[in-house]
Amino acid sequence: MKNLRGFASDNNSGVHPDILNAMNRVNIGHTIGYGDDIYTNSALDKMKEIFGEDSDIYFVFTGTAANVLGLDTITQSYNSIICAETSHIHEDECGAPEKFTGCKLLALFTEDGKLTPEIVSKELYGFDFEHHSQPKVISITQSTEMGTVYTPQEIRDLSVIAHKYGMLLHMDGARIANAAAYLGLSFEKFSQDVGVDVLSFGGTKNGMIYGEALVFFDKKHSVNFKYIRKQGMQLASKMRFISAQFEEYLNNDLWLRNAQHSNKMAKLLASKLKDVPEIQITQKVESNGVFAIIPKEIIPILQDAYFFYVWDEKTSEVRWMCSFDTSEEDVINFTDLIKKILK
Amino acid sequence: MKNLRGFASDNNSGVHPDILNAMNRVNIGHTIGYGDDIYTNSALDKMKEIFGEDSDIYFVFTGTAANVLGLDTITQSYNSIICAETSHIHEDECGAPEKFTGCKLLALFTEDGKLTPEIVSKELYGFDFEHHSQPKVISITQSTEMGTVYTPQEIRDLSVIAHKYGMLLHMDGARIANAAAYLGLSFEKFSQDVGVDVLSFGGTKNGMIYGEALVFFDKKHSVNFKYIRKQGMQLASKMRFISAQFEEYLNNDLWLRNAQHSNKMAKLLASKLKDVPEIQITQKVESNGVFAIIPKEIIPILQDAYFFYVWDEKTSEVRWMCSFDTSEEDVINFTDLIKKILK
Amino acid sequence: MKNLRGFASDNNSGVHPDILNAMNRVNIGHTIGYGDDIYTNSALDKMKEIFGEDSDIYFVFTGTAANVLGLDTITQSYNSIICAETSHIHEDECGAPEKFTGCKLLALFTEDGKLTPEIVSKELYGFDFEHHSQPKVISITQSTEMGTVYTPQEIRDLSVIAHKYGMLLHMDGARIANAAAYLGLSFEKFSQDVGVDVLSFGGTKNGMIYGEALVFFDKKHSVNFKYIRKQGMQLASKMRFISAQFEEYLNNDLWLRNAQHSNKMAKLLASKLKDVPEIQITQKVESNGVFAIIPKEIIPILQDAYFFYVWDEKTSEVRWMCSFDTSEEDVINFTDLIKKILK
Amino acid sequence: MKNLRGFASDNNSGVHPDILNAMNRVNIGHTIGYGDDIYTNSALDKMKEIFGEDSDIYFVFTGTAANVLGLDTITQSYNSIICAETSHIHEDECGAPEKFTGCKLLALFTEDGKLTPEIVSKELYGFDFEHHSQPKVISITQSTEMGTVYTPQEIRDLSVIAHKYGMLLHMDGARIANAAAYLGLSFEKFSQDVGVDVLSFGGTKNGMIYGEALVFFDKKHSVNFKYIRKQGMQLASKMRFISAQFEEYLNNDLWLRNAQHSNKMAKLLASKLKDVPEIQITQKVESNGVFAIIPKEIIPILQDAYFFYVWDEKTSEVRWMCSFDTSEEDVINFTDLIKKILK
Repeated sequence: MKNLRGFASDNNSGVHPDILNAMNRVNIGHTIGYGDDIYTNSALDKMKEIFGEDSDIYFVFTGTAANVLGLDTITQSYNSIICAETSHIHEDECGAPEKFTGCKLLALFTEDGKLTPEIVSKELYGFDFEHHSQPKVISITQSTEMGTVYTPQEIRDLSVIAHKYGMLLHMDGARIANAAAYLGLSFEKFSQDVGVDVLSFGGTKNGMIYGEALVFFDKKHSVNFKYIRKQGMQLASKMRFISAQFEEYLNNDLWLRNAQHSNKMAKLLASKLKDVPEIQITQKVESNGVFAIIPKEIIPILQDAYFFYVWDEKTSEVRWMCSFDTSEEDVINFTDLIKKILK
Repeated sequence: MKNLRGFASDNNSGVHPDILNAMNRVNIGHTIGYGDDIYTNSALDKMKEIFGEDSDIYFVFTGTAANVLGLDTITQSYNSIICAETSHIHEDECGAPEKFTGCKLLALFTEDGKLTPEIVSKELYGFDFEHHSQPKVISITQSTEMGTVYTPQEIRDLSVIAHKYGMLLHMDGARIANAAAYLGLSFEKFSQDVGVDVLSFGGTKNGMIYGEALVFFDKKHSVNFKYIRKQGMQLASKMRFISAQFEEYLNNDLWLRNAQHSNKMAKLLASKLKDVPEIQITQKVESNGVFAIIPKEIIPILQDAYFFYVWDEKTSEVRWMCSFDTSEEDVINFTDLIKKILK
Repeated sequence: MKNLRGFASDNNSGVHPDILNAMNRVNIGHTIGYGDDIYTNSALDKMKEIFGEDSDIYFVFTGTAANVLGLDTITQSYNSIICAETSHIHEDECGAPEKFTGCKLLALFTEDGKLTPEIVSKELYGFDFEHHSQPKVISITQSTEMGTVYTPQEIRDLSVIAHKYGMLLHMDGARIANAAAYLGLSFEKFSQDVGVDVLSFGGTKNGMIYGEALVFFDKKHSVNFKYIRKQGMQLASKMRFISAQFEEYLNNDLWLRNAQHSNKMAKLLASKLKDVPEIQITQKVESNGVFAIIPKEIIPILQDAYFFYVWDEKTSEVRWMCSFDTSEEDVINFTDLIKKILK
Repeated sequence: MKNLRGFASDNNSGVHPDILNAMNRVNIGHTIGYGDDIYTNSALDKMKEIFGEDSDIYFVFTGTAANVLGLDTITQSYNSIICAETSHIHEDECGAPEKFTGCKLLALFTEDGKLTPEIVSKELYGFDFEHHSQPKVISITQSTEMGTVYTPQEIRDLSVIAHKYGMLLHMDGARIANAAAYLGLSFEKFSQDVGVDVLSFGGTKNGMIYGEALVFFDKKHSVNFKYIRKQGMQLASKMRFISAQFEEYLNNDLWLRNAQHSNKMAKLLASKLKDVPEIQITQKVESNGVFAIIPKEIIPILQDAYFFYVWDEKTSEVRWMCSFDTSEEDVINFTDLIKKILK
């Protein structure tokens, strides 16, 4: 069988063993279904230690669901949502946000996956004009789909402009752990402390099986979320098995160890290739992804050994994602192979 | 801590240990995400051994999602869906079918949770009349929310009438295993063999953690389902962990042993109470649920010992659900308690 | 050509000449489009003379749109709307309410098209329970689709129960003029004065061409309605031609004269047939419709002379609607024909 | 009262008198409602003389509705729709397309409101990939919102690329008459003859009151449109009054005379200003709109005399629309005023 280790995505890896063990540990007896159980309450308490008692937190199944239901909660269908062209909500969710919220997405070009006040200002008009979808949310991804990381100040700048216009700031944190590891900051320092209103808090790409959290920093936004989650088909009956994952993930810094490792592997990968003249790293390596333009002809040979995705066919740009279980050996073998082929 | 064993729901129990073990076994190395992996292919092959090569099968997270996305696939928003008043799609999904499909649900009164041609015929009119939501689907639940089970002939009668009007038959099989165990028949004998078009095939209520299958018996209905699943926020990235559950569930008759057991416990529970004059069993006990009218004043005392839900406040009817892990001891202690209190 | 006068529907008639004349009168020069013009302001002022300065009023194109957008404004998609089985929103709008609002409609059986507190109480449960669509609106039709009329007290009884549960009362007033004429009361006496929250105020069935008004009795409900109307495809660019109709309609009691006349014709029709033993009038004749069970074999002969619709094939019940332009001659010729055939 | 003549929009004018007269003429007796009447059949026949017997044509109330319901008919919610950034469906419909269809709109930058194969090719990827909204429609506007007109060949180039990818071509023809007048071609020559699949055929901006037609060039697309129209709240009960307008509009070349006139007025306006050095005409004047960058300080003075809209605050670009009732005197007085102020 083909070697299936590769750099395709951080969700191609399996699960950290501690996560499965934690699920095993809660598999005893009966609990009330749908989240009103001690394991879920305990996991939510854990998260509130981070985000404060005023936060309101819910578990759903997927990152797409966290984004879509979070956005649905803070919009009406006549609103628009400003995001980067490369954002997951625009590019990778098959129109789930439009279908479920009815909103218009305004997807803007960025160089590095990061919105700025200057970029978003292009769409800040038409308020109070009924022919125009009313801008209501700026949605950013942290770390971005391009492997870059917003500084807290960059996020604050966006929340200030959002709030100035009566809008809200949503953060897609599918890879928030990688950003926290890079910044060396706790989650809240670059989310609610700098004005984020709703956060999709991911775990699946960093060693969990399934389950994401949706964090509201003001309970007035989430007062009816329980109905939205149920109607959105995202209420787990055996909730304790999501909760157990989150509790384990946040305990003993499992999230941090995993993210630090995948970040480190990406750094290593980039550093091994930085002097290869045929290869051009196209984005700053600030989390667990490396983007590079490489000779088109070597792509299939490499993919055969270690699978990964082409990001842009036209420019021959590829994406290499590292995972919590990517080994130094994986990276070295892969970069050695590249060098060997290019010789 | 309070005794949490009870008869509230078959999803208040945990997971069969074999299921967790199976998830552990597939936790090795990398696989392509989102379902294009060997474990998923193997699980789908397993299901096709049952339902035939012409079936088309997809995994989603929840039973609500299987119902809603299955219905969405075979309707347009101007259609109506005929179901029982007690059906999960009408009563327990917070309007998810209406929200996602845009269709009208026509919920009809039944004595026992089972639709009949006579009952549904009330709504079979207005075809081709643009002011009227066009009837397109009859949706039945097997086993029903009332613990009853359709015979194959009863299902065939409904599919015949559905197809006669150009409509389709959907089966909500959240508890299909209990029906199969009761009927002593393989799944296909009372689904596609008798004209069911789309089947929500459940596992969570019978010992799995999460994950349901959606089975289309004609690929022309499912040709675009992959987009519907993704847009419906139901595509699992680490799909292998759903697949491993299904493979295990279908192997070695785990599904059957679990369902036979919970059915047997329900029978035992009913039989222990059948001669208690203050208690009136209201529905035939054909699967794992027992419905009974009991003296209102004893309900809180009983709930304190073994939690369960009141089905109808007005009539003092309660629902007792048995699970794969309900023990004879649970049943005997519970029925003894009832008798003791009533004395 | 066939005689097209008949009793099919009050929208099969044309337009009162004064309405077209009024449209002609405003056809001068330019105005701002979309409603910000002197004619629209004048028409809205006219309506506020009736409903008070605190009401908020908008024009849309159709009665279906007034109902759907009004309901959308006061619901979230996880709500349910309680209505009569015979209501236009349930029976005649091809699922427009479900599609646009995402809500569940709970359609209840009535004898005469009128909901009562007792009837609606069946659905007043499951509040705060996330699995259950949250009841939010009771929707009634005045006059009803069965030709009956709610008394102010009957409406108050429904608003009291609605408000007690934190719900709202919507009135579909497609034929509100006929109800006002029957009751001998001004519109507000049986709408906002007795607790109606949102009113679809119709004119098309009583002599106008197109255009209906949506009246909110509390501006907090309509604060964002302008966006809902535009997104709902119901914002007229040349609004003045709707406004001119409403102004004319409300001036000089045109609405009242039209409605009194059609009511009177219905009374006449019923009175002419009340002693015909083969004919059974099935509903009270309180507005402009007559419902009757008649011998099945005479229906096609009658329809050939004066078209009308069969209401219920099974019982041979028919509906005869009178219009502002129905003449005494029409009624007498028609009832004479019936008697002649039956002899 | 302020002079309300101006250059704000072609829907700020009233109605051509022949249109109101035609509505008067059909105001006799009863007809079947909702379109099954002789006047509607006659108007549809008139349109089929243009578009051929294989076309399928429906009337709705507004241009937004024609666009949205037309797009809904040929998409599923997981599709995307490619359009110009300036298109009405993206910029001016408050998100109605997203709300009703669930689709993603991909709005692309153009210099002149016209898409080209090169521009749209940017979004022609991700087919068959379930994470990506599936491109299904290219939507163009003829004449464009920028006053420019596609040649038949330019449209054919777009239909060829659309059909090559299994996509369809939609034309928003809110101002199709102006394009036909400019091109000197009958409507079909630059719509179905060059591959357009669905056409929104407007009349309101060219002298009608309300009512637009939706033209399907292949009946397989429209087989269920009658339900979509009803559920979309766009089925007129007194349809004959829309039909009468269309019949009159197409008879005796009323459409052409109106459009030729408004085009001519726009040409005149532009020609009067072409030598004014402070004014820069920014788009080709090919229909009834003139776009110009003018000194910011004169805008309020001009607007006070003749109202019009600023198109782009930043560049001080304005839009002047001419209408069927714009007079040479209007244009000369307005341009004289400009010149006087600038001196």
